[in-house]
Amino acid sequence: MEKTKKIMLSEAEMPQAWYNIVADMTNKPLPVLNPQTREPMTREQLCVLFAEGVVDQEFTQERYVEIPEEVQDLYRIWRCTPLVRAYGLEKALDTPAKIYFKNEGTSPIGSHKLNTAIPQVYYNYKQGIKHLTTETGGGQWGSALSFACSKFGLDLKVFMVKASYFQKPYRKLMMNTWGADVIPSPSDQTDAGRAILAQDPDCLGSLGIAISEAVEVAMRNQATTRYTLGSVLNYVLMHQTIIGEEAVKQFEKIGEMPDIVIGCFGGGSNFAGIGFPFLRMNMKEGRHIRVVAVEPQSCPKLTRGVFQYDFGDTTGLTPLIPMYTLGHNFQPADIHAGGLRYHGAGAIVSQLLHDELIEAVSVPQMETFEAGLLFANTEGIIPAPESAHAVAQAIREAKKAKEEGVSKTILFNLSGHGLIDMYAYEQYFAGNLRNFTISDEYIRSTTSELPNIIK
Amino acid sequence: MEKTKKIMLSEAEMPQAWYNIVADMTNKPLPVLNPQTREPMTREQLCVLFAEGVVDQEFTQERYVEIPEEVQDLYRIWRCTPLVRAYGLEKALDTPAKIYFKNEGTSPIGSHKLNTAIPQVYYNYKQGIKHLTTETGGGQWGSALSFACSKFGLDLKVFMVKASYFQKPYRKLMMNTWGADVIPSPSDQTDAGRAILAQDPDCLGSLGIAISEAVEVAMRNQATTRYTLGSVLNYVLMHQTIIGEEAVKQFEKIGEMPDIVIGCFGGGSNFAGIGFPFLRMNMKEGRHIRVVAVEPQSCPKLTRGVFQYDFGDTTGLTPLIPMYTLGHNFQPADIHAGGLRYHGAGAIVSQLLHDELIEAVSVPQMETFEAGLLFANTEGIIPAPESAHAVAQAIREAKKAKEEGVSKTILFNLSGHGLIDMYAYEQYFAGNLRNFTISDEYIRSTTSELPNIIK
Repeated sequence: MEKTKKIMLSEAEMPQAWYNIVADMTNKPLPVLNPQTREPMTREQLCVLFAEGVVDQEFTQERYVEIPEEVQDLYRIWRCTPLVRAYGLEKALDTPAKIYFKNEGTSPIGSHKLNTAIPQVYYNYKQGIKHLTTETGGGQWGSALSFACSKFGLDLKVFMVKASYFQKPYRKLMMNTWGADVIPSPSDQTDAGRAILAQDPDCLGSLGIAISEAVEVAMRNQATTRYTLGSVLNYVLMHQTIIGEEAVKQFEKIGEMPDIVIGCFGGGSNFAGIGFPFLRMNMKEGRHIRVVAVEPQSCPKLTRGVFQYDFGDTTGLTPLIPMYTLGHNFQPADIHAGGLRYHGAGAIVSQLLHDELIEAVSVPQMETFEAGLLFANTEGIIPAPESAHAVAQAIREAKKAKEEGVSKTILFNLSGHGLIDMYAYEQYFAGNLRNFTISDEYIRSTTSELPNIIK
Repeated sequence: MEKTKKIMLSEAEMPQAWYNIVADMTNKPLPVLNPQTREPMTREQLCVLFAEGVVDQEFTQERYVEIPEEVQDLYRIWRCTPLVRAYGLEKALDTPAKIYFKNEGTSPIGSHKLNTAIPQVYYNYKQGIKHLTTETGGGQWGSALSFACSKFGLDLKVFMVKASYFQKPYRKLMMNTWGADVIPSPSDQTDAGRAILAQDPDCLGSLGIAISEAVEVAMRNQATTRYTLGSVLNYVLMHQTIIGEEAVKQFEKIGEMPDIVIGCFGGGSNFAGIGFPFLRMNMKEGRHIRVVAVEPQSCPKLTRGVFQYDFGDTTGLTPLIPMYTLGHNFQPADIHAGGLRYHGAGAIVSQLLHDELIEAVSVPQMETFEAGLLFANTEGIIPAPESAHAVAQAIREAKKAKEEGVSKTILFNLSGHGLIDMYAYEQYFAGNLRNFTISDEYIRSTTSELPNIIK
């Protein structure tokens, strides 16, 4: 018998509660504000847009929130996910570090997004909601929500950024397979879409426009319809903690704990998922586990943004969120990690960063594809371009451990596989990709008009 | 705690030997013949083309063949695969039957093909072979072999049917990611390819032509190069028995055994993988488990072919194989389950069918896509179009159990997921697919010229 490659948990060992880090934070996250009144958004205001069950979770101060049995049942389709020792990568790097990864790519849609899609649809279902709307850029979130809606019998309308709609036909088809109605955005189904198309009939869309359309449709049909969001909000991050809760149990099984925990960073959901349960150990048990968020060099909100209230969407329809942000008008470069092209970080992560309880780094695009290829050739799994950011940072840490001659235990979250993102790898092979450096001037220009609410 | 969804095995429980069904067959499979002499092919003749390690396995009469430690190490990247109870599908069908599936889609390439790619490359590596060649149609086999070659440091040249090369760019890119050289076939790199191109410069290729090119390159460089094949041969089927060996252990864990075991059928490898270990129970323990091969209605070699010697490739370069065959000139309809578009079945499966130890059925294309969609919407996993044939038969058996009011335990092999085959589903959604009926006349015409060796 050789060394164990995968540390598994049985279904009976699956965690039965999500972890709400807010309960353990000394400095609580700042509230989300109504942009008109600049007063904190109330439960009632949020319930117009979101299911009551998740709005309650947005506000809860409980440390653990029980995972409903119906959600656990669906989690068991693929969970628990393996914790994998990356022997092949370690060998290629000739490092004394131990590298582990949590493989969220084993879900039916190929990424971690299902962890929150299922409970979000469940709470809408329980409330008697019949229709959901959402937006999707790269298509991961739209796929996850389509899957979940097919399970609970809800209709789903997905506004998919038109550029992605044409570039990523497989993602659209996955959503169709699970019964969702996928609309290229901007569309003629909403006032927001029609206004854009009147100005520019060839507009290829943006996440901001797609959000506007999805929100508009939900607001127009309040009796039966709600809107859903796949990242940023407190409850979304909480749903993802199933990842880290499993990882903690898996490390306990082998009598080890990581020194460093790494997650790529878009809106914060997979990062929070892997990281928050380890942060609890820091806060409650006095451990010193480094928890590191990895963002693209071309979208550096955590490392170069400002901590201020900002809109969650590009067009300014959402409540004001306390964020490390590059400004909602910041236009990220056209990198191939669509899930990380977001201007801001949610309230919890921003507070944790402000309080120096987590770290943030940025990685240039070419390094992430080099890391992704090395990982594919040593561990066999082709990572999603987003997840390749976490791989790249794990490699940096492993090299550093070698230079310093110390053995470190590194954990990163492989948030998804890249089998449906091969177009990005094609562009890399063809030599069409490059790094993007963002000037201080540009960041100043996109952050200068933010309201000066956080003093 | 709800009902268990997945029956798992730990890495320590992974079977450490493949099962060679030949040892238990009363009527042994007929030998493969040299087409010139019509004498059985010798070890030496086969070793010109294939690695010695696998040629030895082609001839072995041992019941169990130990899986080398290096192969086990790589199997552990994703094995053991889950045995999953399809509660969702059962509910949708309102059937008293219990339906289980073995999920081979959890491998890094998304299908069962890795089970044989890894040992094949391993034995070539052990022999000091530096370069491998192969052909691929849909791309599953090429991806698997690319993965395995990247692990053992061998070069790989894949001749990919030109139509697929353009239709399935993601598959090509997967192979590139693992370092393989992918050549659209027919190519100008071989005499075979050049001859075809001289006749028809726009030829989109076929599996037969691609085999000819791959074999030619291997033969031309015998000192350092060998050819590899992903199905049909005895040792390929044996490597796949890891699937069924695991499934037997998993059923033992829950104190159950299937009444019916189902696998889709192209060249026979995934069918043998899931089925042979259960056939052993029939042969050695007097059980009566039905083992059912499912082929496309449009390529009905098992249900309507003849049992006779035939070539393995379209152009007639390979040894003569005892097969249920439609004739090597049979042109299968352009269905979207590329892996099942093969004219013949290998020696072992053909003997088993001849001796009525297994059953065979055929399913029309539209029924397979309906089954695939029902499975995607009840179990969450989008099946490969090939695997959807097994799903369709499982549904037929579950409906029959309901009609008869009996509880049956049904097992099928989900040989792969369909995330890289979404083009096929797109064609289905667009209403572009149909069933194909093959006339008796056509089958007579393609089988009439076979040599009359089996009397």
